[in-house]
Amino acid sequence: MLNFTYYNPVKIVFGKGTIKELPNLIPAENKVMMIYGGGSIKENGVYEQVAKAMAGRPLAEFSGIEPNPRYETCIKCAESIRKQGSDFLLAVGGGSVLDATKFIAAAFCYQGDDPWDFMKDVSRIPTEALPLGSVLTLPATGSEMNSFAVISRDSTQEKLAFSSPKIFPKFSILDPTTTYSLPPRQTANGIVDAYVHVLEQYMTFDAGSPLQDRQAEAILLTLIEEGPKAMAKPKSYSARSNIMWCAANALNGLIGCGVPQDWLTHMVGHEITALYGLDHAQTLALIYPAVIRHFKERKKQKLLQYALRVWDLAEGDENARIDAAIEKTDEFFRSLGVGTRLADYNIPAQAGKLVAQRLAKRGQPLGERGDVKPIDVENIIGLRA
Amino acid sequence: MLNFTYYNPVKIVFGKGTIKELPNLIPAENKVMMIYGGGSIKENGVYEQVAKAMAGRPLAEFSGIEPNPRYETCIKCAESIRKQGSDFLLAVGGGSVLDATKFIAAAFCYQGDDPWDFMKDVSRIPTEALPLGSVLTLPATGSEMNSFAVISRDSTQEKLAFSSPKIFPKFSILDPTTTYSLPPRQTANGIVDAYVHVLEQYMTFDAGSPLQDRQAEAILLTLIEEGPKAMAKPKSYSARSNIMWCAANALNGLIGCGVPQDWLTHMVGHEITALYGLDHAQTLALIYPAVIRHFKERKKQKLLQYALRVWDLAEGDENARIDAAIEKTDEFFRSLGVGTRLADYNIPAQAGKLVAQRLAKRGQPLGERGDVKPIDVENIIGLRA
Repeated sequence: MLNFTYYNPVKIVFGKGTIKELPNLIPAENKVMMIYGGGSIKENGVYEQVAKAMAGRPLAEFSGIEPNPRYETCIKCAESIRKQGSDFLLAVGGGSVLDATKFIAAAFCYQGDDPWDFMKDVSRIPTEALPLGSVLTLPATGSEMNSFAVISRDSTQEKLAFSSPKIFPKFSILDPTTTYSLPPRQTANGIVDAYVHVLEQYMTFDAGSPLQDRQAEAILLTLIEEGPKAMAKPKSYSARSNIMWCAANALNGLIGCGVPQDWLTHMVGHEITALYGLDHAQTLALIYPAVIRHFKERKKQKLLQYALRVWDLAEGDENARIDAAIEKTDEFFRSLGVGTRLADYNIPAQAGKLVAQRLAKRGQPLGERGDVKPIDVENIIGLRA
Repeated sequence: MLNFTYYNPVKIVFGKGTIKELPNLIPAENKVMMIYGGGSIKENGVYEQVAKAMAGRPLAEFSGIEPNPRYETCIKCAESIRKQGSDFLLAVGGGSVLDATKFIAAAFCYQGDDPWDFMKDVSRIPTEALPLGSVLTLPATGSEMNSFAVISRDSTQEKLAFSSPKIFPKFSILDPTTTYSLPPRQTANGIVDAYVHVLEQYMTFDAGSPLQDRQAEAILLTLIEEGPKAMAKPKSYSARSNIMWCAANALNGLIGCGVPQDWLTHMVGHEITALYGLDHAQTLALIYPAVIRHFKERKKQKLLQYALRVWDLAEGDENARIDAAIEKTDEFFRSLGVGTRLADYNIPAQAGKLVAQRLAKRGQPLGERGDVKPIDVENIIGLRA
């Protein structure tokens, strides 16, 4: 096992009817700015539940956070917070609203000219941030239980991530009934997102961490089991609650303790979203199976374990079991209605070269060994033609 | 899934050579009182490592915390803290030292006459406690990553537990190499302790929580795999690190999220320790297999799942599979050298009646349904004759 530090102080308040706990979770002296996306929380009753819970408390609001939240919108929100004098941010929505709120919390406290600076230079990440909490309505990114945020910037076609212990939510309320009204595309995206989050931390090489391996497989097996149930019965409390808890556990840091991590698919996926506007999870479904096919030699031992423990593939030679596991993964994504080929999204064949160039220019090491080359990226995307 | 709140702010610093991180984890302005047990940390080099890391910082010390830490010793330590003017407690040892330190941290801030009062009346638990951190040297109780403490009192032959968010360690350093020199009995006890912690949260009834079930099974399977390795090769970093991380995960609250919990074995075990002086883990090995035998009807569904997923028992009828799983559990404990019969500890046959009476007098509900009767307790203990 590799040395690690694990720290996650997010208080999770999980279950039916938990939005009414809000006033117990936000200190009475705070002036709250509620941040949300489009109108869905007004349609599904969540907005009303929050307003009712917070009745009698100052509650300003800012709406219009987009999927793949935009820097430009976040800056507007920070201005609004200054105007309103808010000192506690309440994200109500999915990962995009949460990520935006985290960025805003830090950007608000940034001393330099342009908060985008700290997205490019970790040494400039503010040491303070406004406190924030969340009411999650879309299980997917795990942002409700971690200290990461990913933000896109129009003017530069960039999509970048940052992390700071200061942006952990103080609390996250996870009421599975808020997810009953999700459109199938968002439900499916959430399942794929959580699934690939797990695989990015699992499918590397053995570092003597059998517990973390099994904790990862626990999430994969549960998503495979519960995902289709939620798609078939959107109001299944059991399926919705399990998916919601799986997504939080997929990226709360626990399964990543002491193990090598990959994240190549995410890096490639962010570029594809920046260039072609795909949903985050669509990029993962598109790229992930190709990554494990391209790197099946170096990931062989874990692929065999995955084949056996997750897909119950015990027959045939090693190569056949690995190919079958990759195919099962691809099929699982497609069974949820998420495309896994360039053609599903009308992405041109030259995308491979373009994405490889952009990543090369960024110069970050890629993959669990940090040695993935532009030609690997190009070939991986080429496998999806 | 049942509604739940999960909150665990303990920072875990895990791995070889991590004791040297101490000065980065304890604020520079704090005056530290180091609390430990017998002389083992002086023999295995841990005392020296702590002293070296803290060189130049005020560091008082209090030694002599016993296994099953005694109230009387804790009170002495609190007096010493007052005398020294310490304001940060550093537990260096196993679960007993940690539990004692947690109790002392709260007792120090208690406003009433006798801190034992709050062990018997949760409403009197202090709302403040001294901050504390730990260097763990014996993986077993999970105390390094939770807010529980169990303390024994001589004068009343009582062993009681309390919990408060104020007694979460600020950090716990887990360096697996500190466990290389553990005697076999303590290594084995730790494995049994962690194993039964998992089962107390797992072996109840289905509440629609497949992820938590699998997270629990992940720990059980890893303990079964790594436990014998640590017994055979005490200096196996791989085995020691996995057991250490398993023990923390067994009782950090995660696998208990949203599920019914039992804890009957612990309640019975505490009485047996108070009466007959057994190690905590010895009481668990003694009682647990009898609990699942006695309640095999009401735990049937989970026992079948446990038989299949943990012990790979797929053959035979349901009753045969359940009996085999119970026998495997018993065998596993015995294979580690921990006795599972009254005779192994010279406990008289009348223990059953005595323990049942003591528990009845305490009047706490027992078992996952809160309906376990004195006669059940008597019969369970009777199964170990």
